Amino acid sequence: MRPALALRPSSVSRVLRARRVASFHRYVSHQASRSIAELLQWRPAQAADDVTVSGFVRSVRSMKARRFVALGDGSSLAALQALVEADHAGDLAVGAAVRLTGSWVSSPGAAQSHELHVRRVEVLGPSDAKTFPIQKKYQTPEYLRTMPHLRPRTPVNAVLLRLRSEAIASLTQFFAGRSFTQTHPPIITSSDCEGAGEVFTVTPANNTPVPANKAASQESFFRSKKYLTVSTQLHLEALAQAVGNVWTLSPVFRAEKSDTSRHLSEFYMLEAEMSFVDDLGPVMDLAEDMLRSLSTNLIESATVGDLLFRSRNSGSDLAPADEVRRRWEGLMRQDWPRITYSDAVALLQRKADLFEHKPTWGAGLHSEHEKYLAEYVGGGEKPVFVTHYPRDIKAFYMRETPTPTPEIPGPTVDCFDLLVPEFCEIAGGSMREHRLDPLLDVMRRQGILKPPSEGAPGDSSCGGLDWYVDLRRWGCPPHGGFGVGFDRLLSYLAGVQTVRDIVSFPRWYGRCDC
Amino acid sequence: MRPALALRPSSVSRVLRARRVASFHRYVSHQASRSIAELLQWRPAQAADDVTVSGFVRSVRSMKARRFVALGDGSSLAALQALVEADHAGDLAVGAAVRLTGSWVSSPGAAQSHELHVRRVEVLGPSDAKTFPIQKKYQTPEYLRTMPHLRPRTPVNAVLLRLRSEAIASLTQFFAGRSFTQTHPPIITSSDCEGAGEVFTVTPANNTPVPANKAASQESFFRSKKYLTVSTQLHLEALAQAVGNVWTLSPVFRAEKSDTSRHLSEFYMLEAEMSFVDDLGPVMDLAEDMLRSLSTNLIESATVGDLLFRSRNSGSDLAPADEVRRRWEGLMRQDWPRITYSDAVALLQRKADLFEHKPTWGAGLHSEHEKYLAEYVGGGEKPVFVTHYPRDIKAFYMRETPTPTPEIPGPTVDCFDLLVPEFCEIAGGSMREHRLDPLLDVMRRQGILKPPSEGAPGDSSCGGLDWYVDLRRWGCPPHGGFGVGFDRLLSYLAGVQTVRDIVSFPRWYGRCDC
Repeated sequence: MRPALALRPSSVSRVLRARRVASFHRYVSHQASRSIAELLQWRPAQAADDVTVSGFVRSVRSMKARRFVALGDGSSLAALQALVEADHAGDLAVGAAVRLTGSWVSSPGAAQSHELHVRRVEVLGPSDAKTFPIQKKYQTPEYLRTMPHLRPRTPVNAVLLRLRSEAIASLTQFFAGRSFTQTHPPIITSSDCEGAGEVFTVTPANNTPVPANKAASQESFFRSKKYLTVSTQLHLEALAQAVGNVWTLSPVFRAEKSDTSRHLSEFYMLEAEMSFVDDLGPVMDLAEDMLRSLSTNLIESATVGDLLFRSRNSGSDLAPADEVRRRWEGLMRQDWPRITYSDAVALLQRKADLFEHKPTWGAGLHSEHEKYLAEYVGGGEKPVFVTHYPRDIKAFYMRETPTPTPEIPGPTVDCFDLLVPEFCEIAGGSMREHRLDPLLDVMRRQGILKPPSEGAPGDSSCGGLDWYVDLRRWGCPPHGGFGVGFDRLLSYLAGVQTVRDIVSFPRWYGRCDC
Repeated sequence: MRPALALRPSSVSRVLRARRVASFHRYVSHQASRSIAELLQWRPAQAADDVTVSGFVRSVRSMKARRFVALGDGSSLAALQALVEADHAGDLAVGAAVRLTGSWVSSPGAAQSHELHVRRVEVLGPSDAKTFPIQKKYQTPEYLRTMPHLRPRTPVNAVLLRLRSEAIASLTQFFAGRSFTQTHPPIITSSDCEGAGEVFTVTPANNTPVPANKAASQESFFRSKKYLTVSTQLHLEALAQAVGNVWTLSPVFRAEKSDTSRHLSEFYMLEAEMSFVDDLGPVMDLAEDMLRSLSTNLIESATVGDLLFRSRNSGSDLAPADEVRRRWEGLMRQDWPRITYSDAVALLQRKADLFEHKPTWGAGLHSEHEKYLAEYVGGGEKPVFVTHYPRDIKAFYMRETPTPTPEIPGPTVDCFDLLVPEFCEIAGGSMREHRLDPLLDVMRRQGILKPPSEGAPGDSSCGGLDWYVDLRRWGCPPHGGFGVGFDRLLSYLAGVQTVRDIVSFPRWYGRCDC
């Protein structure tokens, strides 16, 4: 791993140039699979013959007896410029899938160093340009969202797909390098009471024979009611007690009727759980190292180059490139500040007149408070950990802080929220209550556990969570972990304004196309 | 990537030894996170003091004033042997989570080169050994399956968890190296007519307010009926038309009431889709390269060493180690045979008296037929591609073979099944029909498309697949791909007898624990 550094634009350019040279060498050794991104970096002094490239026609411009064709294949924001004689260009409609063969020659124009002088045109998938819904001109995100099956064909959406892919690969490498076991916790689960919001139920479709008693039939496939998971954490804890440190990148589901730029009904969560950790420090270190490793790794990629160096006029709705670059540089910095909730509230209270909502110990932080903290504590640059929130506003499984500071008004839990500038919360984590009796106490207090049963093993009085309580009966070490909304993280890194535009087929209240 | 080679047991040992040396060097440079697997490879000539190790007590054996404690942490099948003075060992119950500190000294016994002479015992998570359901003695898979939350704590199940993790990391690297984009196709989908079996429906739970008209309310969250995906292929095709080559490792769901060793209601599918490929060859090459790369990469890992070199008496239900080793070596071989369905049927017909079911052109292959083909064509060793099945027994989206051989009784499709010895089908793929009219024809013939509408864009007469038809309207290049049941693949590689034992929290008809 390269050391993290605060990059100035010039050094960013340098690493990108280095990357491009590497990319060129890869191109030369794997001629069979030449992408447009690779071809655009290839600048031979002499014209190269018999170059074949496949892609989709972005635009066609007529110029006397020739056509200037802009070709894209999803590998770069920039298009490849191809020159085709008019009599070969008949079927080169916008949107068509084509294979072009010709000479790669240096270009007289300033826009690209080289262009393809086409000798042979194969139209592999024709297009009716008149009805093709994707146009080269600016189209609103709302309009593009009405056709998620075609939207990925826009150049910017292809960049977002590549960003996701490279982020997954980088994170997989990060965790493998630390011997974390990547796991597949279940999607269909038995519990609906994790307190993370509304849930979806799962039943066999009606094309299976339905007995007279319909309600019973809906539960009969799995014998009792089942739900789509809202978080894999509880199952991850079971796995962490087998192999120590675990992580997952898993779809999770919320049936909330939220109509905001931050909420989806289906999204990917990255969750990690560490065993044999005594306190929150190593858990926060892991979250920090992970995000720094991700940003440091990817900053060099051509994909992130496309995000950071696009022109202001590229006609997308992404946040300005300068702003996006600041986000990446922030994540790459060392030593992110950590402040307790209690200190944060005291700090906010000294500036109470700045806020619409009064900062009060015992209440959640409002978005305006989080924004101020990210700005003031993190200098508008570094992410900020806010730790040790009041117990009574947090989930039942969080461990109560063992040695609370006397001057604090009430009990707190060993937890954190990670705030980033503008965007606010991007990750959250905690130590988990690993002792049986304190866990049963809090489950009783929160009404998850019904009093008569006392959580005896095997009964179903824990809202389907008997098994989770069970984990504490035999050898449960201190453990903790965190979760990151993966799609939100990608939105932040890409500068996408709503999480609906970072997911290929977004699902939210009232919308589930394709 | 190392070249694949047919390994003899001796060369397997050699690569494993090399790996262990590497693992030792990693241990020395990262003392902070020493796993038991790493410690067991560390054989210092002089006793090392202040060695700390965390894990779970597998067994305690009394011997005069000392206790021999077997400690596991999920990182290896073998346990670490620790010697504890009896007066320190009071709380060292089976199942307890402990941290032990002491000296790492060479052992007089033959079983391990070194053992830990414990100076300090910390019990971090106590255990009631009398009620702890996991015992060191043999426990049947059926019994262990009744407690999926505790099952991962058995040494063999920890090996299976690590195998999954290493397989994911290896596959991620394989596809990244070929510039395939890893994607997250949707889990909740609109179509129930892909022909892959029964589906689950998704509705908000009843804790959201229910209007009087219950049926309507169930569909109101997303406005129409929604399902859990049975395969990501159709959505992958849309993404492949944006960025060329794509893959995913995604959960998929089937509501089939199958009670077999091969079926789950929830499982992970690895699916890949290639754009701009003219025929099946490159698709089969990819599947072959991928599985060879996976096996060649992992054969060196300590995890696979645990699978291949466990003793016959290790008390698990895995297939014999020799058999499992043959499977790995088969996948590592070059040039897997490819045979058409028609040739395969002709071959089977010549041996018709061997089979219960008569081999007939136009019918599916029975398991006994597939076993024979794997044995006869693959020499019981190499996987075998069977290609070009009859059109009428395959899915609507498969491309009809453009130039059928005259002597073949009926139309075929460009598809393949990949068969491995004993286990039979492990992957399946095809070219997809990329032309609009032929696709509409076959959808009409199979009743997916209702005749009056003629599949006009925007109507919902295609069983929710209008968008899929749409992909063919504008620039759809020839493309194809394949799918691998990831859990079945892992079962095969691990020698697990049923897919229920390779998944941590298996769900099948009637069973969904935790």
